[in-house]
Amino acid sequence: MAIDNQEKILESLKQHLTPEQISVNETVKELHGKDESYHKMELPDIVVFPENKEQVSEIMKISSQYQIPVIPFGLGSSLEGHVIPQRGGITIDFSLMNKVLEVFEEDFLVTVQPGVTRTQLNKELKKYGLFFTVDPGADATLGGMAATNASGTTSVKYGVMRDQVRDLEVVLADGTFIHTGNKAAKSSSGLHLNGLFVGSEGTLGCFTEMTLRVYGIPEHITAARASFPTVKDAVEAVVSILQAGIPIARVELVDEQSMVQVNKYNETAYTEGPTLFLEFHGNEAGLRQDVEFMQEIVQGHACIEVAFETDTAARNRLWEARHTLAYAYIHGHPGKKMMVTDVCLPISELAGAVSHARENLMALELPGGIVGHVGDGNFHALIMMDMDNPEEVAKAQEFNERIVLYALERGGTCTGEHGVGIGKKKYQQQEHGAALDVMAKIKAALDPNNLLNPGKNINVDHKELTQ
Amino acid sequence: MAIDNQEKILESLKQHLTPEQISVNETVKELHGKDESYHKMELPDIVVFPENKEQVSEIMKISSQYQIPVIPFGLGSSLEGHVIPQRGGITIDFSLMNKVLEVFEEDFLVTVQPGVTRTQLNKELKKYGLFFTVDPGADATLGGMAATNASGTTSVKYGVMRDQVRDLEVVLADGTFIHTGNKAAKSSSGLHLNGLFVGSEGTLGCFTEMTLRVYGIPEHITAARASFPTVKDAVEAVVSILQAGIPIARVELVDEQSMVQVNKYNETAYTEGPTLFLEFHGNEAGLRQDVEFMQEIVQGHACIEVAFETDTAARNRLWEARHTLAYAYIHGHPGKKMMVTDVCLPISELAGAVSHARENLMALELPGGIVGHVGDGNFHALIMMDMDNPEEVAKAQEFNERIVLYALERGGTCTGEHGVGIGKKKYQQQEHGAALDVMAKIKAALDPNNLLNPGKNINVDHKELTQ
Repeated sequence: MAIDNQEKILESLKQHLTPEQISVNETVKELHGKDESYHKMELPDIVVFPENKEQVSEIMKISSQYQIPVIPFGLGSSLEGHVIPQRGGITIDFSLMNKVLEVFEEDFLVTVQPGVTRTQLNKELKKYGLFFTVDPGADATLGGMAATNASGTTSVKYGVMRDQVRDLEVVLADGTFIHTGNKAAKSSSGLHLNGLFVGSEGTLGCFTEMTLRVYGIPEHITAARASFPTVKDAVEAVVSILQAGIPIARVELVDEQSMVQVNKYNETAYTEGPTLFLEFHGNEAGLRQDVEFMQEIVQGHACIEVAFETDTAARNRLWEARHTLAYAYIHGHPGKKMMVTDVCLPISELAGAVSHARENLMALELPGGIVGHVGDGNFHALIMMDMDNPEEVAKAQEFNERIVLYALERGGTCTGEHGVGIGKKKYQQQEHGAALDVMAKIKAALDPNNLLNPGKNINVDHKELTQ
Repeated sequence: MAIDNQEKILESLKQHLTPEQISVNETVKELHGKDESYHKMELPDIVVFPENKEQVSEIMKISSQYQIPVIPFGLGSSLEGHVIPQRGGITIDFSLMNKVLEVFEEDFLVTVQPGVTRTQLNKELKKYGLFFTVDPGADATLGGMAATNASGTTSVKYGVMRDQVRDLEVVLADGTFIHTGNKAAKSSSGLHLNGLFVGSEGTLGCFTEMTLRVYGIPEHITAARASFPTVKDAVEAVVSILQAGIPIARVELVDEQSMVQVNKYNETAYTEGPTLFLEFHGNEAGLRQDVEFMQEIVQGHACIEVAFETDTAARNRLWEARHTLAYAYIHGHPGKKMMVTDVCLPISELAGAVSHARENLMALELPGGIVGHVGDGNFHALIMMDMDNPEEVAKAQEFNERIVLYALERGGTCTGEHGVGIGKKKYQQQEHGAALDVMAKIKAALDPNNLLNPGKNINVDHKELTQ
């Protein structure tokens, strides 16, 4: 971007934002030039911190007027380079738009600004006996979670981010506001825009308000750890639990290598073998029957040990251990970067896919492990690599590709919950085929100048992707 | 359409379909010129009966070549004129594409052709201990149900049609095939086309294969009828049950007038007052606790009587009675047509909306009643009217409009499950505002010549809608 243009853009921004809301400071730009992934940092030209939706609209108009890219930014916890401004431009940091606007207790809905984080929301909802279900590892913003269609440990019961979004207020490329839904539990009116905008990774518009579905905190919760001789036994136990129709609320696989990291980082003493972390929600009598049935099933799959976490503190410690696992790896391997695979497969293919990943991981000779939201057929291989060692990086990338191709050949997807960003663009043609043209047409219709987070998820001319 | 053009089109069709698969017979055209709604019949020029997806693709290419509309047709059970060929053209009847292609037992998925009906599918799934959840009154085709984002009595627990669609094979306007999804339980890859095509009412493409989510038949089912002094008491009881977190599988409101019709048509002797039909799915112990809690709650809302339907036959009779209610009204009022309203509101607004509808229905002095999927905030007023009496028709239409405006003013939608078709187009601008431009752009991008079920749901130039 030419500097004289930058001066004009800054002048235009100053007509709508205070000086404190606009930054060209190098440190601020660097904080907005990367996410939690291994993808290379690129700097935005300007970072803005809008306080309200009207300011976001004005920023979009300025983007359109000067043909400069805009990149929405939550907390930078994305894992595929979603927020990296590869073409420069204006990064819109939503951290000042962080209000829980209204709790609709009777309707099980809440309206929030996009900068609210999930723990912030849950703290507020707790006052009403309610909770927000989607639960990725990071304390991401809800705007970012909607942009990537995030999910997590509870999705097997409550669904993914897309299932929770009842309405989005979106600012389009030209600064216009739209609402993608309403407050009714269902609708057959018009084309379904909620689902389209969720997961669009900032490429179709910026979210300024979100109305989300929430749930009553369950009457009773039981958590358990079950360890198995092999990862395959653990996965097969999960398939059997699902087939038995037990309404499991969470079921997480943590492999042996990852249990070692868990224990080191959290100072826990859990058995260091392939382990399932489980949780059940329901009424007391129903829960007891479900848990008994579950125990029978896991015993039929060579389960070594089942330990129940009865009190809230022990349960929280269990899930804390699971959620900090990525940080445990990073902490345990200073100077290295993490690459995380994210495929999701039909559940019948999961045991094979995890075994395949495990074999390839062993051959890789890099530190790493496997964890997964196995109730959904989604698992992650976490690999620590030295970014200054091109051989390690190449090996890790080849590994990722093998995992992705295995999933695509079996009816799966290259990303179950992290999104496409930069890292998964190269698989879009293979995964979507001719449907990629439809996506590109929609992108072109809504962002004809390709200014909204350009180069992420989908290109206007998607042919670029395969070059 | 000029007749010489018709000859050319028929010639082109004959290159890909057998003579038995092409009809210009008046009776056949009349059978494809209407649905179950009160909307005026219009005839297609040609009706075709493809046997496979390749034939559907060729029909789409012919539509494109001769610029002639195509209208997909399932069983004609739509309720807002969705299948009426207002501009003539080729109606594609999918009744020969009615195969259940594959049951993926372990994955809880099934792949079907669009002409399969829900009862046909459930018959097949029963062999595997599985069932398909979406349950509108009519025995509609699954293609039609996906096209309108249908739902029904079980949506409060299992979700609507959109929640069940894992993948669609779609033939686009130019004859190209795409897949909108995959077989994984979740994905954050690309733009979400599944949700966009579900509910698109044939305006973006024709479905040729569908992969749908199915569930295990519940271990235990309990059904109940609970009658109340007023409709308001019944609705408030439902709100309390939902807030208590009882995972109800079905909860249907049937008002006094409708209970009279139920008893007449089904020769049952149910109490003729405002009634809830309820169902609970789960394990034995959990169910018992849920049902006890439910009884406490309804008693707190002046419930007159709760009767449990313990055996399968009594339970089936109960739901049969609910499902045949529309036919009971039609049967009971020969020569009259039915108009059905279909709003859905936030649950906190439901009691008020139903009371408002009841008052307006009384003032109307036409036979009718109120029923509803009240767990979702969705209810229907059914009105019998004489189509040859313009005053009755006008009164019924004014009534429908009042119901819609009441819902839209309170964060609801003009259609919870029937779709837009012809009947709800006039409310699209008010419901969607600027979002209607986005929908029109998507329609224009995918169907630039406006040949796919033109004039339904959305116009390419939506401004026509408000003229």
